[in-house]
Amino acid sequence: MGLCMDTIGDEMIIRKSEEKGIRIAKITGADLPMEPEKNVAGVAALALLEKLNVDYGFEIEIYKKIKAGSGIGSSSASAAGAVFGMNALAGSPFSRQELIQFAMQGEILASGSAHADNVAPALLGGFTLVRACDPLLDIVRIESPTELYVTVLHPQIELKTSEMRAVLQDMIPLKNAIRQWGNVGALVSGLHTSDYDLIGRSLHDEIVEPLRGKFIPNFPAIKKAAIDNGALGSGISGSGPSIFALCKGFETAQKVAISMSKIFDGSDVKYEVHMSKINPEGVRIISQS
Amino acid sequence: MGLCMDTIGDEMIIRKSEEKGIRIAKITGADLPMEPEKNVAGVAALALLEKLNVDYGFEIEIYKKIKAGSGIGSSSASAAGAVFGMNALAGSPFSRQELIQFAMQGEILASGSAHADNVAPALLGGFTLVRACDPLLDIVRIESPTELYVTVLHPQIELKTSEMRAVLQDMIPLKNAIRQWGNVGALVSGLHTSDYDLIGRSLHDEIVEPLRGKFIPNFPAIKKAAIDNGALGSGISGSGPSIFALCKGFETAQKVAISMSKIFDGSDVKYEVHMSKINPEGVRIISQS
Repeated sequence: MGLCMDTIGDEMIIRKSEEKGIRIAKITGADLPMEPEKNVAGVAALALLEKLNVDYGFEIEIYKKIKAGSGIGSSSASAAGAVFGMNALAGSPFSRQELIQFAMQGEILASGSAHADNVAPALLGGFTLVRACDPLLDIVRIESPTELYVTVLHPQIELKTSEMRAVLQDMIPLKNAIRQWGNVGALVSGLHTSDYDLIGRSLHDEIVEPLRGKFIPNFPAIKKAAIDNGALGSGISGSGPSIFALCKGFETAQKVAISMSKIFDGSDVKYEVHMSKINPEGVRIISQS
Repeated sequence: MGLCMDTIGDEMIIRKSEEKGIRIAKITGADLPMEPEKNVAGVAALALLEKLNVDYGFEIEIYKKIKAGSGIGSSSASAAGAVFGMNALAGSPFSRQELIQFAMQGEILASGSAHADNVAPALLGGFTLVRACDPLLDIVRIESPTELYVTVLHPQIELKTSEMRAVLQDMIPLKNAIRQWGNVGALVSGLHTSDYDLIGRSLHDEIVEPLRGKFIPNFPAIKKAAIDNGALGSGISGSGPSIFALCKGFETAQKVAISMSKIFDGSDVKYEVHMSKINPEGVRIISQS
């Protein structure tokens, strides 16, 4: 499952160009490859371009605001932005839902396989659940309760993807899987009915968090601070190192943000904190000319 | 998860008695123990009585309509009926939700552990999801889409509980568990939004059905008949041998019932077929005097 944030996001300028193909003209905020084939947004753009059937190309400028390696879908944000902007310039032949298949191609570069976990919320907004990805893509969008906020703390440490994968176990106990089925179903139900308490009770990861949490410095203390200060629940965002907390209301989200940050007082670890209402619409056009 | 049927159910007569305690006065339709401590409904009744703080007892007559060992919660129906009727006679001190904890005590007798999988839908109606059972009971009720019907085929064969348990594996592949998390979340979402197609796409049991299906004669053919005739999806009810199919609309449910039954043409296996709209309220009082 994924959700879309509102207060932080990459910004992009996309133009039609006489020159065919995709050209990445500028990237600020991150040291990323300019060659489209080596850039996540570029790969997504190329996948869409192939189906657009247009006699022009696109020039893309990327202003990265979300740090790479954060676990909050930095590369997916750019991939979603690229295909959304290009599609708009081409007269919107594809729906947001249809754009997912193109944006997710960028994930092959980022993580080795095309998955929609991050690009789906970026394109559709709200909460999304990927029911199936292969062979058929089946994505369920779930409207967010109106008072739901997310607080994200990003400790700027590097987690090695290979190491984070290696800790996952191929086999898991059936009884843990059953508990987690209960949590997933109840979380989805809580989102549909705006039952904030149920969302809180269901927000447990019995499977991956115990294995990956130990790689994130102070993870138990950060999570405890969030819960103690009123968060509904808290967990690892993506494969980390970011930690998220769902909160009811802005004031709680703010209080939780402060309490999570305090854990790093006097520590050498740099961090960022984001607070956001769940973005109900996903990627959007800021201005056009 | 469980659901509540409407067209088939046990009927019970419950009376206050001057004699304290629980007395099972009559059982028809099944050969079950009359001693309350050895009868599932009796155990549930005793559990409730202990908390009722009344200076009278209850006399219970049970008219079994649901066959034992069917996999559609026969014993739970009587347990739910007993506590619901007693609670009503005592002036309804407990809510339907609160009655679950008493009714589920009967399951210790039936299956060795107190679980709410079957008594919860019987008491609450609609769909229920047991998020957690131990140590805290957390049951989520989900309203059924209005046009949803269930068709149940009960082949009257005996499955040995010990054998059905032995086929379950303690460990399951993580990738199967992930697929099933997707299915559970999507099914719950589909129920909330009356998205019948999504309900159909999500109605897959990747874990238990492949192991237990082979003990039910003609299971693949029955399931295929249901799907071919318009069922949204089909699977094993409880631990079998009953097979259920969810359908949109009464006509489809009927067509599916006929197609499932036909598989047994010329076979020695006796069977029953039930068709029902999802019961939105659960156990109810038929008449009182």
